[in-house]
Amino acid sequence: MNSEIELDNIIEVINKAQKIAIFTHVSPDGDAVGSSLAFYLGLLQLKKEVSIVTDEFSRCFGFLPHLVDIQREVDDCYDVSIALDCATKGRLFDPKNSFGRSNVTVAIDHHASNTYFAKLNYVEGNSPATCKTLVKIFKRLGITLTKEIGSCLMAGIITDSGGFRYNTVDDETFEFAASMLDLGVDISDIYYRTFDVKTKAQFQLSTLATSRIKFYAKDRIALTYVTLDDMKKTKAMAGDHEGIVNVGRNIEGVEVSVFLREVDKEFYRISMRSNDYVDVSEVASLFGGGGHSRAAGCDIHENLDVAIKKLVKETTKVL
Amino acid sequence: MNSEIELDNIIEVINKAQKIAIFTHVSPDGDAVGSSLAFYLGLLQLKKEVSIVTDEFSRCFGFLPHLVDIQREVDDCYDVSIALDCATKGRLFDPKNSFGRSNVTVAIDHHASNTYFAKLNYVEGNSPATCKTLVKIFKRLGITLTKEIGSCLMAGIITDSGGFRYNTVDDETFEFAASMLDLGVDISDIYYRTFDVKTKAQFQLSTLATSRIKFYAKDRIALTYVTLDDMKKTKAMAGDHEGIVNVGRNIEGVEVSVFLREVDKEFYRISMRSNDYVDVSEVASLFGGGGHSRAAGCDIHENLDVAIKKLVKETTKVL
Repeated sequence: MNSEIELDNIIEVINKAQKIAIFTHVSPDGDAVGSSLAFYLGLLQLKKEVSIVTDEFSRCFGFLPHLVDIQREVDDCYDVSIALDCATKGRLFDPKNSFGRSNVTVAIDHHASNTYFAKLNYVEGNSPATCKTLVKIFKRLGITLTKEIGSCLMAGIITDSGGFRYNTVDDETFEFAASMLDLGVDISDIYYRTFDVKTKAQFQLSTLATSRIKFYAKDRIALTYVTLDDMKKTKAMAGDHEGIVNVGRNIEGVEVSVFLREVDKEFYRISMRSNDYVDVSEVASLFGGGGHSRAAGCDIHENLDVAIKKLVKETTKVL
Repeated sequence: MNSEIELDNIIEVINKAQKIAIFTHVSPDGDAVGSSLAFYLGLLQLKKEVSIVTDEFSRCFGFLPHLVDIQREVDDCYDVSIALDCATKGRLFDPKNSFGRSNVTVAIDHHASNTYFAKLNYVEGNSPATCKTLVKIFKRLGITLTKEIGSCLMAGIITDSGGFRYNTVDDETFEFAASMLDLGVDISDIYYRTFDVKTKAQFQLSTLATSRIKFYAKDRIALTYVTLDDMKKTKAMAGDHEGIVNVGRNIEGVEVSVFLREVDKEFYRISMRSNDYVDVSEVASLFGGGGHSRAAGCDIHENLDVAIKKLVKETTKVL
């Protein structure tokens, strides 16, 4: 369906609804938490009765407003349930399976891989963040952007765009950031709290992985790994490995960065990143994985040495 | 003198001049190289005869336009000499001492510590980058912003603002970035090339320093160092230690990050950063140094162990 007609329908059902629930993906990141809270505050402005449901998230978002309103589960029947920043039904955090029990389900997202699992879906695959996509929707709903709403939206935009780094950041994103500064949103502070600060466990895990980066194929491949034992020793939590794969990618001369994470005995989850020309999704697909040309992943059921050898061999072929 | 009147005078002397030379500071960074090249291209548009002088700079700026026009020295007499992004006369790269021989000298800068060493000085102490200050000046001079000029300006803005991170980034900065995207400037690519990429030596020096971070005062102080021997082993070049002090600062719970760099036998150069409340310039001043409340530095002539003990002792006192 034409996405603008779908958006018209979403605006209409939200306008008509009284009781609305907001959901997002498991392991919520800055864009999940930020978009959920911003939408929650926006719908309160419109005098709706709103529930907001998320799983536990990083303490770094502790400065965001209205965190105490967030529930871990809801069991009611809603006029509309909205899934934010969630690409598939399977990724939705919904312990009581209440999302599908609403009269209407809506999904708003920026993942190009979104499966359109709701009744009404609005997906902007080229948006840097769901929070950025919400700006347009808030305008349509007549929600006034406040400093509180703006802080939530900037938390999502900063974290999901890598600090305005990715090429999904468009002129509207920068213009929105400018308007949020004018509104008094402390972008520099949000940047520091949500993007720069690492827990000691994250820092130690990253340092461990970084210190054991090895180079292959005349330094064009950088490869490292973390084991379950590393996670235990550093007291790392789920998600604390995020970003480690970028360290290798940012070393001059490196075309492909490979990161292996042990998830079980002889079971490694692989992330691959390339810079200029290697299609890492091709390499990942050889191991039953996939992704994009510059960012892909797969699982390998082997011991560490064999997994590394296979990855280096196949990556070297496409260099 | 009123800075706007000073700017009027600068515009006037540039408009009248025919032969102009552009200078910048020693060890030129992204803002020095970017502002110099942008001004060079802008003045060529105005049909001036322009010389551009800089010291050697990082290969990461190799994608910028007209690098072949840059000279290592000039010896002529110019109508106007312009110093960009340079806070003091002593920091100016000018091997033949030709800056002062011009009929008029001009300094354009964003360092609040600028000493107004030229005849005409325009200093925006709250600007994120000299490149951002130039936007206003180009408008006054009638210089058309091209994709080439925009790429140079964005290189300076991205690197000097820590990737739009610091609180000097204002609404105009974001609006300018938006307009540069509209012009076709590849901000994401410039961000990667000038800000993300590390040489192998930088990576290895940083990894070494990071892996030896020690915590003091209940983890509120993070401290690390590099020795001359480390620099030699990793083949690090001047400036390759830049940014290491921020690693400690970004660990949750850390208030003060301290970084010692050996510059000679029993001679350490210290950088200190704080997050929320410690005035590190107070600590630095105890050792004859100074700076700002959140970023300061000093020199200590002691062996490493004594230097660390003294720094930890004095920093703990103000926590």
